[in-house]
Amino acid sequence: METLIELGEKAKKASRYLAQASSKEKNAALQLMSEALLENASTILAANQQDLAAANENNIAETLVDRLVLNDERLQAMADGLMQIAELPDPIGLVSGMWKNEAGLTIGKQSVPLGVIGIIYESRPNVTTDAGALCFKSGNAVILRGGKEAIHSNKALVTVLQQALAKTNFPTTAIQLVEDTTRETSRDMMRLNRYLDVLIPRGGTRLIQTVMETATVPVIETGTGNCHVYIDKDAQLKMATDIIVNAKCSRPSVCNAAETLLIHEDVAAEFLPVIEAALAEYHVELRADETALSILKKSQPATEEDWETEFLDFILAVKVVSSLDEAITHINQYSTGHSEAIVTDNYFAGQQFHREVDSSTVYINASTRFTDGFEFGFGAEIGISTQKLHARGPMGLAELTSSKYIVFGEGQIR
Amino acid sequence: METLIELGEKAKKASRYLAQASSKEKNAALQLMSEALLENASTILAANQQDLAAANENNIAETLVDRLVLNDERLQAMADGLMQIAELPDPIGLVSGMWKNEAGLTIGKQSVPLGVIGIIYESRPNVTTDAGALCFKSGNAVILRGGKEAIHSNKALVTVLQQALAKTNFPTTAIQLVEDTTRETSRDMMRLNRYLDVLIPRGGTRLIQTVMETATVPVIETGTGNCHVYIDKDAQLKMATDIIVNAKCSRPSVCNAAETLLIHEDVAAEFLPVIEAALAEYHVELRADETALSILKKSQPATEEDWETEFLDFILAVKVVSSLDEAITHINQYSTGHSEAIVTDNYFAGQQFHREVDSSTVYINASTRFTDGFEFGFGAEIGISTQKLHARGPMGLAELTSSKYIVFGEGQIR
Repeated sequence: METLIELGEKAKKASRYLAQASSKEKNAALQLMSEALLENASTILAANQQDLAAANENNIAETLVDRLVLNDERLQAMADGLMQIAELPDPIGLVSGMWKNEAGLTIGKQSVPLGVIGIIYESRPNVTTDAGALCFKSGNAVILRGGKEAIHSNKALVTVLQQALAKTNFPTTAIQLVEDTTRETSRDMMRLNRYLDVLIPRGGTRLIQTVMETATVPVIETGTGNCHVYIDKDAQLKMATDIIVNAKCSRPSVCNAAETLLIHEDVAAEFLPVIEAALAEYHVELRADETALSILKKSQPATEEDWETEFLDFILAVKVVSSLDEAITHINQYSTGHSEAIVTDNYFAGQQFHREVDSSTVYINASTRFTDGFEFGFGAEIGISTQKLHARGPMGLAELTSSKYIVFGEGQIR
Repeated sequence: METLIELGEKAKKASRYLAQASSKEKNAALQLMSEALLENASTILAANQQDLAAANENNIAETLVDRLVLNDERLQAMADGLMQIAELPDPIGLVSGMWKNEAGLTIGKQSVPLGVIGIIYESRPNVTTDAGALCFKSGNAVILRGGKEAIHSNKALVTVLQQALAKTNFPTTAIQLVEDTTRETSRDMMRLNRYLDVLIPRGGTRLIQTVMETATVPVIETGTGNCHVYIDKDAQLKMATDIIVNAKCSRPSVCNAAETLLIHEDVAAEFLPVIEAALAEYHVELRADETALSILKKSQPATEEDWETEFLDFILAVKVVSSLDEAITHINQYSTGHSEAIVTDNYFAGQQFHREVDSSTVYINASTRFTDGFEFGFGAEIGISTQKLHARGPMGLAELTSSKYIVFGEGQIR
């Protein structure tokens, strides 16, 4: 088993090659990798069976097991995903601006790869191919560190990707896996500043928390979404109901699902019963503040913790507010800065919400569920950043790049 | 003395106001701050005298004392600096792109402040007003932590800035100083994730190193520059000499000064004696590899450490290389990723140097000394980033911003 230092050194070297590779060369390799996934399906699925057997022995929760499962259909989706990434425009080499300075130098700002990216993630093996391919397409070497529950699947997947790379001029070390899934190694990886240019954790709140507290490598924080929908006094009942039901119920386990409903006191008595009935179809549990409790037929009192919690489940916190200002203050206090929506017919309310809510994505009259690289039209997504440095909101290929200034002179000195 | 937590809470609150402030309001406050510096000159200079007396007692090095000194002329420059920042375009509220997605949502990407910025710096008191004003103009609250040698000057300066803010609607806590200059507090600040959105260290290698190892707050690494000039076999002698003399000698104490000269073996015997004579006028000490040693009249052998060192002095490492590839490999191994230059008449050599050198700014036929926010035309500079995340190279006001997606819907659900 290779040490992190060894993986780091190899990744650094590979990144030099990757940074210079042409789009054509990268896309051909992605196609080979895509084909290799299907050609080696039986090997990959056999490895996945080992993980599933271990999960069974360890009594791992049903929802986690579901994330772990690979089958022909999922493998096909992963292979298709690689082809889709091959078809995206290359984010490297773009000059976003070029000008002459006072000294007569021509200065251009050009996109370049970040270098070596570390990804720490949990049990989904599809992240292995997906994140691996996105880093590859953007000219970055990647070191993947998946959860121990998926180690056999991940080893098989990375082996297959590397075998495909072996047929090209790329170093096979462009995509590597940390096979040692101990916590110590994970922590060491978070401090591997010498080799990693950036670390992207993908997973639950606890993982993100650990990374934020431990990492000295620059991190892009992703994915925790305590999202809010605020129904203004000037909202339309049907639109408000549709949006909150969609935001809560269409897929509660994802980060762009709503966790708290804020509603203006002027419409609470009229709207809440209708909304409650609509949510009841999905058996949503309501945790309400005092005023909402008195209106709702069936709810329990919300605790302070409920306002802070990303339930990721059919649970919704409900609070009646006396003003838009109060809603915005609540959001800016409790939100993780992911996505928030206002439902309103009022121009000024919408403007104020856009301006004052401090989150990555702020909606007027739409569901928070749209915060997604594909929905945004990026054609890919490596995660959703909830931090303000480097990238904020859905991250596509462009967010996996850095820049450098290329300067053309004619002997200028200062 | 306020605790970091207290400073952080106040800064967070202030940042909400700052983010919404109009350009007009911010510029008027900057003008008041500029005027206040001159009106309170005697108080500030008296405080500076206390620092200078302490420096004298502690036998602090002459060069450090020079950085510490304030006088009427320097105060005027600081006041002028604030006015220049007031005159720059506001970096906040710009929409860099807006499009409709498949669901019909209009999605715009808008620049917003980062929030609360921490600056850790060494003894120069002008950083206090300069960094404070840049953060202010970009709508960020700032917590400044200057060196203990300048504590009296910094306290006086921040007090004056806050008195000016007190005449406006801005919270005076928009610009705050950490008065406790102990190492412990500095380390605590590097881990103040709850309040700081970003930390920018400005200072020497040791400070940057400590921050990189300690900080869990997202950091923008600045300022260490082990810069290289490579003289190609197709270089013109006069241009090569002018550029290396300028890069080394025009201001050796700054990060964009050159520290190593690489020269192609085909021209070493002809060029090095001319270059040596030109550098001798500035009494530059040369530390050379074996081949260069045999050509130079007066030099000493370079050690492995010399290739890694940012001398910040009239010292230059010199190495003869057998190819452009060898030069690029040397640079990518030893450089801090700041600025590098090639001198060449050859089109392909220039192209390859631009493409393969992995640094923030890569020059063809110009001095590395141009890597600077003012020279680049940004009108300001908060530092020069040598990392790849968020910003790379000279950072102006735009680099002190983040973005958010503002989405306009008409009831869309997913």
